[in-house]
Amino acid sequence: MLGARPKDQFVTATSIRYLSEADVASLLPSIGEQITLVERALRDVVRGVAHQPPKVPLDLGGGAPFAHAMPAAIDLGDAGGRVAGAKWISGGGGAPIGGVVLVERPGASGLRGIVAAAALTAARTAAVSGAGLRVAPPTTDRARAGGALSAAIIGGGVQAVTHRAVLQLLAPGAQAAFYSRRAASELPLLPGDRVASSIDDAMRGADIIVTAVAFDTAPREIALDSITPGATLLVIDYAATISGALVAALRARGAVRVITDSAAQFDSTRAAGKLGSALTGAWPAADAQIGELLGGAAPSGTVTTLVNHLGISACDLVLADAILTAAEERGVGTLLPR
Amino acid sequence: MLGARPKDQFVTATSIRYLSEADVASLLPSIGEQITLVERALRDVVRGVAHQPPKVPLDLGGGAPFAHAMPAAIDLGDAGGRVAGAKWISGGGGAPIGGVVLVERPGASGLRGIVAAAALTAARTAAVSGAGLRVAPPTTDRARAGGALSAAIIGGGVQAVTHRAVLQLLAPGAQAAFYSRRAASELPLLPGDRVASSIDDAMRGADIIVTAVAFDTAPREIALDSITPGATLLVIDYAATISGALVAALRARGAVRVITDSAAQFDSTRAAGKLGSALTGAWPAADAQIGELLGGAAPSGTVTTLVNHLGISACDLVLADAILTAAEERGVGTLLPR
Repeated sequence: MLGARPKDQFVTATSIRYLSEADVASLLPSIGEQITLVERALRDVVRGVAHQPPKVPLDLGGGAPFAHAMPAAIDLGDAGGRVAGAKWISGGGGAPIGGVVLVERPGASGLRGIVAAAALTAARTAAVSGAGLRVAPPTTDRARAGGALSAAIIGGGVQAVTHRAVLQLLAPGAQAAFYSRRAASELPLLPGDRVASSIDDAMRGADIIVTAVAFDTAPREIALDSITPGATLLVIDYAATISGALVAALRARGAVRVITDSAAQFDSTRAAGKLGSALTGAWPAADAQIGELLGGAAPSGTVTTLVNHLGISACDLVLADAILTAAEERGVGTLLPR
Repeated sequence: MLGARPKDQFVTATSIRYLSEADVASLLPSIGEQITLVERALRDVVRGVAHQPPKVPLDLGGGAPFAHAMPAAIDLGDAGGRVAGAKWISGGGGAPIGGVVLVERPGASGLRGIVAAAALTAARTAAVSGAGLRVAPPTTDRARAGGALSAAIIGGGVQAVTHRAVLQLLAPGAQAAFYSRRAASELPLLPGDRVASSIDDAMRGADIIVTAVAFDTAPREIALDSITPGATLLVIDYAATISGALVAALRARGAVRVITDSAAQFDSTRAAGKLGSALTGAWPAADAQIGELLGGAAPSGTVTTLVNHLGISACDLVLADAILTAAEERGVGTLLPR
């Protein structure tokens, strides 16, 4: 009707690279590189070099599924300049968790890539746990004596897989006790690992504890003395395993530090009541952010550390950008016309 | 290394439908249908049926390009239930404006589609202008006498094209005067339209005025009497053409209404200083939202109406979902593995 403009007025010569879950799985950098990448993002968020708005949870009408829009902008300096983007992630309530990360280098003619987000999120989460474990290694008697460590992993989903791999790198030789609703054959057991009979059985004596159950898991009682003083807990399931009341009890027993990836995100999520309420026992504010502690000295005494990181998209973005660079080099992915 | 899980642990059977700009151009519903769709979203946002968080502008380090993450969730009722998603849109400073809209029907195994956003945004913006024109038709002497209307379009980009088409539908027979930096051959002139020699020449006597210049256009003086009392102004370029000082002068002259798509978004953008500052003259708060006025009576006297809509993703989402349905029916697009 209005013939003045051809249909292709919006089409430009370049294309957008799409990477599926299988592509991402084939391109993920080593776990050591993943940790290095997210450490950079964590440091830049703390320094204000990165722009990390709080994630936006969408109101889906009261059902169990969630959907989060997670924008961020980072600066890779000589390694790539500014990178802006957003993660879309949804699922829960029985539906698989998945989505995409949109990646753009501003000024370079629009989106660079669209990267499947499930495997990436599982890797990113474990890498941030690795960064947390590096700045807050366990200070149990055994750890301080230089003995072989032991670990507990609560939950048996994809995060158990990626976290087991991170522990293998950062605490080589540590044996892990798993507690989950899954069968042993479904768990990423390494030689020496075991399946525990209860959550207390798994945790007791562990120097490193990963809690990674589904967000809608019913609360379970945990005995205070199942958590060894000086243990480092990598808490990636909000308050589903470790309640605010348990944090308060730990703090009443001895020195406790709460560490997170982004204090702004942590406070936003606390304010939304998703880390427990005054009624059920709420998590306290964080004492420090991982990015502040990188390169600093570990505490000298016995301190039980809870690393509760909620996930920030600056970390997703730095990984997605690196995966896109690898995809370009190897010619992996689907090129989409704009 | 961890052999317990196959690589395809994240891959599900369904795929994601990607629609390029060319696909979208071939699938856009008629302008009348576009207006009906965005009216539904505008009404639902006002009623709180839709969830419309403010858009998140990303800090790209002080350059001219912008990037916005724009999440929303709408409810189509029997026509499709809940739809959640987010638009990513970037450009400016010489770079083309583009991006994608992510569309999901929660609980239905993740993303339904990824829809190119440039043509969609141009259509959506004009459709919202159409909804604004319907609730706020001009009340000039000529309009109230039932005479043939005249229009002005300031700016000659993609929005000029889509807005000319909306005017053709809603004010058939109206002749338009264009003012832009482009040559006449680049403008979507219809028979009877003309190219004006100045912004005042274009606006003078117009019953309907569209202002759609690039956001970074240098301010231009506009004579107060170039705007006919009772005209309806469709302002889609923030404060680039119509300054807050001009709004104040119009208000001092006679009755003025300011209407927007979302008061929350309008106030958020005002607070960010993007609708002028106290120093340069800031836009006032809106008097009403389009969705509140739908189906109501038009004003009886002469009221100059400024419809300044900033763009909300609920409107993008309702259009993108309809385009995806059309794409499924016609088998258009690229199916991406998850």
